[in-house]
Amino acid sequence: MKRYLGIDIGASSFKYGVGDSKHGLQCFDTIWFQEKSLSAFTEIMAQIWERVQDQEICGIGIGSPGTLRMPEGKIVGLNPNLPFFTGLSPQELLPQGLDLPVCVDNDANLMALAEANLQNCSVAVGITVGSGIGCGIVIDGKVYHGAHGFAAEAGHCIMVCEGEKCNCGQNGCLEAYSSVDSIRRRLQKRGLPYHALSLPRLIALRATEKELDAVICEGENILIRAVANLITLLDPQMVILGGGAMELGLYDIQRINKLASQYLPEAHRQETVCTLAGYGNRAGVMGAIIMCERRAF
Amino acid sequence: MKRYLGIDIGASSFKYGVGDSKHGLQCFDTIWFQEKSLSAFTEIMAQIWERVQDQEICGIGIGSPGTLRMPEGKIVGLNPNLPFFTGLSPQELLPQGLDLPVCVDNDANLMALAEANLQNCSVAVGITVGSGIGCGIVIDGKVYHGAHGFAAEAGHCIMVCEGEKCNCGQNGCLEAYSSVDSIRRRLQKRGLPYHALSLPRLIALRATEKELDAVICEGENILIRAVANLITLLDPQMVILGGGAMELGLYDIQRINKLASQYLPEAHRQETVCTLAGYGNRAGVMGAIIMCERRAF
Repeated sequence: MKRYLGIDIGASSFKYGVGDSKHGLQCFDTIWFQEKSLSAFTEIMAQIWERVQDQEICGIGIGSPGTLRMPEGKIVGLNPNLPFFTGLSPQELLPQGLDLPVCVDNDANLMALAEANLQNCSVAVGITVGSGIGCGIVIDGKVYHGAHGFAAEAGHCIMVCEGEKCNCGQNGCLEAYSSVDSIRRRLQKRGLPYHALSLPRLIALRATEKELDAVICEGENILIRAVANLITLLDPQMVILGGGAMELGLYDIQRINKLASQYLPEAHRQETVCTLAGYGNRAGVMGAIIMCERRAF
Repeated sequence: MKRYLGIDIGASSFKYGVGDSKHGLQCFDTIWFQEKSLSAFTEIMAQIWERVQDQEICGIGIGSPGTLRMPEGKIVGLNPNLPFFTGLSPQELLPQGLDLPVCVDNDANLMALAEANLQNCSVAVGITVGSGIGCGIVIDGKVYHGAHGFAAEAGHCIMVCEGEKCNCGQNGCLEAYSSVDSIRRRLQKRGLPYHALSLPRLIALRATEKELDAVICEGENILIRAVANLITLLDPQMVILGGGAMELGLYDIQRINKLASQYLPEAHRQETVCTLAGYGNRAGVMGAIIMCERRAF
């Protein structure tokens, strides 16, 4: 059996695992970090390699935040959390002298790849809802990158003309309404005392706090329209929603599935299903492994 | 040399031509119709075949309005202009007993295919601005259909929450702002006396009639955001804008190119170019021929 190492670089941890698409993950672990620097990251990579190197790994897949230029795999997009990452190729973090094929991709692309594979979908859109909004498009069972690697930035599609300010510098993006950060920002802007609460607490308080509920509903309604637009444009078999906030139930998948379909042209309804992601926080690692495998090393 | 027959069914005419992608069209003609019925259309098809049958045709491509379910090529979408068309497969219009391979696709998809081919683009989005808004997506040099054939309905992406009523039954679609019909509708709704004027006259009057200009500008601004969203999502090499209204200069391609790029995340700018279509009203016929050829009969 051919085994691959998948690594998923996040805002506060490296997740990693060893396995293949058929048998799943033989091991999975998380290494948390506080120091955000090239040397700290390189050290974590060495640590991961140390732990798995006796497992006859035949390829390494890495998922990274940020926009990657393809096919080079170089990070060109803003990583507000990881400023030193811009201009870097994530494979540079690996120990030198490894004689193994390495491939990299954006973390949301890999989540979409893993979830599409799990659902047996050849055409799918994956969306992650967390501090930001991530998106990946899978076509013919492979990640769709576009001409330069920048595709699937659905979080930065403009949903409201002259709308709320987004982290990306634009106004009215999906991420500026439906991400957890943007909900906190709007709560603060409206002078509501909830913005610093934990997400589970925020969700629990919706039942009694109407103003809080209205802000979250706004996020959900804009997400639903964005999902409808993705279906109108890409006609996938499934839209798969994941990420920490979806797992905690910030938005209601039944409502998204029902209402998104009502926003579609009549002929398109009842074809695409919106569903919750199945891999949870292992999707990035699993996607990195599948990516490696599909390149058929 | 292998020659193909391309037929483009429109709202008031059949366009057809014979040729191949390398040498272009050896002949091109238009047959106008008034009667919109299955028998009238079948007769026109017979007439076209009569005219070209001695040219050693080795395949027929047909472009049709409406949404086609793929791979069957059956029309499922609304054709408000051609109600008898729903449920039909356009190849059924051809004379019986033709022993030739036939393929069909949506007209906007074929425009995108032809224009992408002309521009030597493997990843492109084509948009037609006319009475409605058409769109086609080309990936790896082929039309992207999605899972069921319904992809690329960019005209029905929601651009304004609870916005203007669209022909499709939804509110706030791109088509409800940027199509020529929607401009006329908004002029009428606002009680402005221009809605029945010809399009060239409307365009000429913009310079002096501020209220008219404002309605057209609104259409252009929403189109620009839609183009930016398409780039953010699909990262094409080019967005190619055509259709009768673009040819007449309803919207300004320089302005679209410049402003769409400003709506993109920073890392994405300066990669995708917005440009005018080159084939004019022959794009559909040319696309039908290329489609036929690519299926390599």
